[in-house]
Amino acid sequence: MSNLSIERKEDYAILKLHHGKFNLLNSVFLLEIIQALQELSQNDDIRGLIVVGQPGFFSLGLHVKEVAELSGEALIEIGKHISLVNYEMVTFPKPVVAAINGHAPAGGTLLASGADYRVMADDPKYVFGLNELGANISLPYDIAQGLIFWLGEGKAYPYLMEGKLIKPEEAFDIGMVNELVPLEEVLEKAEVQLKKYLKTSTIIFTRVKRLLRQKWVGILEDEKKRAHDEWGVFWQKEEIRENFRKFAARL
Amino acid sequence: MSNLSIERKEDYAILKLHHGKFNLLNSVFLLEIIQALQELSQNDDIRGLIVVGQPGFFSLGLHVKEVAELSGEALIEIGKHISLVNYEMVTFPKPVVAAINGHAPAGGTLLASGADYRVMADDPKYVFGLNELGANISLPYDIAQGLIFWLGEGKAYPYLMEGKLIKPEEAFDIGMVNELVPLEEVLEKAEVQLKKYLKTSTIIFTRVKRLLRQKWVGILEDEKKRAHDEWGVFWQKEEIRENFRKFAARL
Amino acid sequence: MSNLSIERKEDYAILKLHHGKFNLLNSVFLLEIIQALQELSQNDDIRGLIVVGQPGFFSLGLHVKEVAELSGEALIEIGKHISLVNYEMVTFPKPVVAAINGHAPAGGTLLASGADYRVMADDPKYVFGLNELGANISLPYDIAQGLIFWLGEGKAYPYLMEGKLIKPEEAFDIGMVNELVPLEEVLEKAEVQLKKYLKTSTIIFTRVKRLLRQKWVGILEDEKKRAHDEWGVFWQKEEIRENFRKFAARL
Repeated sequence: MSNLSIERKEDYAILKLHHGKFNLLNSVFLLEIIQALQELSQNDDIRGLIVVGQPGFFSLGLHVKEVAELSGEALIEIGKHISLVNYEMVTFPKPVVAAINGHAPAGGTLLASGADYRVMADDPKYVFGLNELGANISLPYDIAQGLIFWLGEGKAYPYLMEGKLIKPEEAFDIGMVNELVPLEEVLEKAEVQLKKYLKTSTIIFTRVKRLLRQKWVGILEDEKKRAHDEWGVFWQKEEIRENFRKFAARL
Repeated sequence: MSNLSIERKEDYAILKLHHGKFNLLNSVFLLEIIQALQELSQNDDIRGLIVVGQPGFFSLGLHVKEVAELSGEALIEIGKHISLVNYEMVTFPKPVVAAINGHAPAGGTLLASGADYRVMADDPKYVFGLNELGANISLPYDIAQGLIFWLGEGKAYPYLMEGKLIKPEEAFDIGMVNELVPLEEVLEKAEVQLKKYLKTSTIIFTRVKRLLRQKWVGILEDEKKRAHDEWGVFWQKEEIRENFRKFAARL
Repeated sequence: MSNLSIERKEDYAILKLHHGKFNLLNSVFLLEIIQALQELSQNDDIRGLIVVGQPGFFSLGLHVKEVAELSGEALIEIGKHISLVNYEMVTFPKPVVAAINGHAPAGGTLLASGADYRVMADDPKYVFGLNELGANISLPYDIAQGLIFWLGEGKAYPYLMEGKLIKPEEAFDIGMVNELVPLEEVLEKAEVQLKKYLKTSTIIFTRVKRLLRQKWVGILEDEKKRAHDEWGVFWQKEEIRENFRKFAARL
């Protein structure tokens, strides 16, 4: 795993993402994150997890220029990996804190949304949000569930349908981010929150977390069954791919 | 259709309601709205819709004095039309903005709630809300779903159980209205928002809108099956009809 | 019934809890409350209900020191009673106002959450909230549903996962408490609100209340079936019981 590293601290781990400067998500990198999450979830020495990016860039989301060239099976595969990384984050059985140390649009927001708690760098230059529709790109239903869970269907709706990118302050005000701190303190404060969670026995935290997320997880599982319609049919349409290429060309 | 008119603008339409001074909803008028929505939804030249009332009166809701005289099949029919106009608004496959240019209690709130976005006249004399229980009138479950979708079950509950009428400012604060502007700018600002939505390809907007509303629509479809219990049994009870007549007499 | 009394007022009743100084919930006291709620719900002379504690202590929740000694069938029984008192509150077919005249942590919050409206004493020394996880105690899924209903899943999540105890002001700000008044006015203001609800015909209030709570009640009914797993297996584990005893020892 060359695009991420795992730091062990006492009874928890810090998953550090460093794929190029921007932590752009492509199939290879997503698979590395998925495998890391699966291993950490099964490692009993690890009682909690922090996910952190690189200063300035938690993750800029999907590697749009690369995905714009994909079609057929390769497009289905990236779709599968996006859904799976989300599934692994949402179902991670132990406490997870996202240390959002920079930009986190689209896939960056997705990665962070599965965590139990989000600490973000308090600088108005950073962006957060599922901005797909604002870029004339579709939004798979499973990917939208994080905002829907945290905000409720109605409060999430305008953010999703307009594809709004918001500043950390607005993300905090609406409840998508739990804490705003200076960039250099993001990781430290994430650890403070994780240690708070670690005071609860793993067996209890895991059980209650699973119960409180069971509807969310149920939707993700239903969507897995419908993935063919999403990635095998809808995203293969020429109009959808053309929109995507236009967006990639503007980046 | 003499109680409404449709104005065409570039790639969208404006549905203007003008049934008497108050846009009171009776069976005939509801059917006209339903048919207009069905035709507009199928017309591929129309990519979006604005619904607007008459200055001062978006709609005062159900024609209570007329409905108070109904029983048997006529009561079942008006119930069916109320449910159907709501269903057509909620499932309208393209972006819809409600230009709430005046009072919008009860059925007025219902009409507006199905839209993707609500712009309301910023004047404290106007009222908004599902005030049925405050008038000792029952509230069908499908009719309550708009407030429940936008606010969440718990936040909607006190508004529904007390049948509160609220001012535009409160409607905005709780998130039922997205934008408050002077009366004379309501339609114009609604068009600004609609044009924002129209930047997204119809195929994408339609798909994501359907996905984000699928639970809401599912409840409306379940309620159609239960409509006999609501309108064929409950609303036929003498106590319910007597309450309704008392309310009509106070108007 | 020596630990509670029922005061009749015109067409409603006031259920007064007085089990010791703290209204601690044990199997006997819970059963008394359950039976009182069942009788009041079926008494047609009673059109509404207020539940009130003793000045300073609405209820301190479960009798932890007593429950810490329980195992096997006795533990299953107390679990059943907690679920049932919640079920009776949530499904009470007529308007209920909780007059929270003092501390209401854990089981105190549970009792109050089933009501239609909560008036709480406006004094920062009082606590409110489902603080189980903060005390390293598990939280059954049905017990969590009150906060989830009123706040939505995402807004309730951090309160539940951190087991936060909050002050009346925060409980009001987030919408768990509808009104804050001085301690000596709690009961009086609860009656004012109840009388507002009583203006609506019972047949209408009961029907709409049942419809608006049907998902909540559905979850409680599903959980009844799963109670064996919760109380017959999970809470019987040595680690869970040991945590509970440690917490009891600190009180």
